[in-house]
Amino acid sequence: MTDEAAAFVPGHVTGFFSVHRAGTPAKTGSRGAGVTLADGVTVRVTPAAERTVTLNGRDASVPAVGHVLDALDASASVAASTDLPVGAGFGVSGGMALGTALAANGAFETGHSENELVGLAHEGEVAAGTGLGDVVAQARGGVPIRLDPGAPPHGQLDGVPATGRIEYVSLGELSTADVLAGSTARLSSAGVRALGALRERPTIEGFVRESRRFAEEADLLTPEVESIVTDVVEAGGEASMAMLGHTVFALGHGLTDAGYDATATRVHDAGASLTGT
Amino acid sequence: MTDEAAAFVPGHVTGFFSVHRAGTPAKTGSRGAGVTLADGVTVRVTPAAERTVTLNGRDASVPAVGHVLDALDASASVAASTDLPVGAGFGVSGGMALGTALAANGAFETGHSENELVGLAHEGEVAAGTGLGDVVAQARGGVPIRLDPGAPPHGQLDGVPATGRIEYVSLGELSTADVLAGSTARLSSAGVRALGALRERPTIEGFVRESRRFAEEADLLTPEVESIVTDVVEAGGEASMAMLGHTVFALGHGLTDAGYDATATRVHDAGASLTGT
Repeated sequence: MTDEAAAFVPGHVTGFFSVHRAGTPAKTGSRGAGVTLADGVTVRVTPAAERTVTLNGRDASVPAVGHVLDALDASASVAASTDLPVGAGFGVSGGMALGTALAANGAFETGHSENELVGLAHEGEVAAGTGLGDVVAQARGGVPIRLDPGAPPHGQLDGVPATGRIEYVSLGELSTADVLAGSTARLSSAGVRALGALRERPTIEGFVRESRRFAEEADLLTPEVESIVTDVVEAGGEASMAMLGHTVFALGHGLTDAGYDATATRVHDAGASLTGT
Repeated sequence: MTDEAAAFVPGHVTGFFSVHRAGTPAKTGSRGAGVTLADGVTVRVTPAAERTVTLNGRDASVPAVGHVLDALDASASVAASTDLPVGAGFGVSGGMALGTALAANGAFETGHSENELVGLAHEGEVAAGTGLGDVVAQARGGVPIRLDPGAPPHGQLDGVPATGRIEYVSLGELSTADVLAGSTARLSSAGVRALGALRERPTIEGFVRESRRFAEEADLLTPEVESIVTDVVEAGGEASMAMLGHTVFALGHGLTDAGYDATATRVHDAGASLTGT
């Protein structure tokens, strides 16, 4: 056993999605597309007699992290840190679950492959109702297209070949669990349509335009978010809403060009990985 | 059309492999495992009336690059640069093909997805006989395990969760085309065995040990390479031979600890991607 291990997981903003429930958490998931971000979650796992989980120094209750630690039979202290807004559609819970899986496998030398660790984190998210597609996207990096739902080997991914600057403004939390617990038929119909359109022409501008159309069709835009998105588009930019959070993301300088005080990050070209010692 | 675009593709050293030929280049490929490297290939594509291909400033004949340009109907100047030894088992030809696909798609806005571009580069390598598995590994990054042969959606990948320093010493070229043109039955039998063993316990140390056993079983070690590998192991390190090149790679400081003047690089945590403007 090594003393401790750490992993970095990029943030992930979903632009559009459809919900696909199956008999097992591994086969359950979402189809859709999103963008991974250089702003992400760093997770440090240290063997400890008592299990503790913290986020930015405070005790955190993240069921998916508990699922991963249980599956790896790891008694550990998990310390996560992030600059991302929490509960605002950036995949922080998925990042904590996946980072815990990678780092605990390193610290406890549990001998799993990356696909197996991604599967554990995905199942934890699905079981907790906190996410359906962030983990597999965060494991891949770039601008992931989720062709088929679920963890490896069920889920299949592609990507939009793109990189560059991303901006965001976050207005606060929105409960993924609440939205996913409600009827998702209308949402999923819009998500399937958007996926087909993006696959016809996979560009990052097309991804954001399809995301915006999805948000409208699925009736998920809040008035504040809609107002900001409209301002960016009227200023000549491309923006949409993070699924699921009161967050607007934009390409390039879209938000600053529209007069907003936005946070800048970039497309993260890598998936989640252990950090060097 | 943008003026030009550039992509970076990590180097890739295969440790062990088996050959799998099928009815189409997309389904043909190798199974096995390798490590992608932060030392890689940068490819810049510029629209031009006449097609030119250079590597480190000199005219280069790389059939897989021609295949990609033909498929994308791209009349372009392709300028590749790398610090890696050429023809020595680092996937430079695969890197040029994949980098050309990503950058030409960007420069000419041909509207392909990443899987489609990986497929074009893989098919070009297979058709030219210059590689069977580098492209899909280089598209993924990390320490890729090639579970099933071929390009997406046929090929399936997993990964060894690992990062860290890699060293190498290269003694010169070895023709991939010549080895692949010969009988590969013994080699493939050893490769399938090594893959099974690595999947049982996917660690980076296990990967290098299985690679060494594969090189012995497949009778691919040259006397000089074998001597260096033995020195590293006797000094307490892990090393094996790059498939296919007169090259020794080692974990951590394995080669320098054994007294060799080695080049140092790292596991590259990201797959191939466009570089920002």
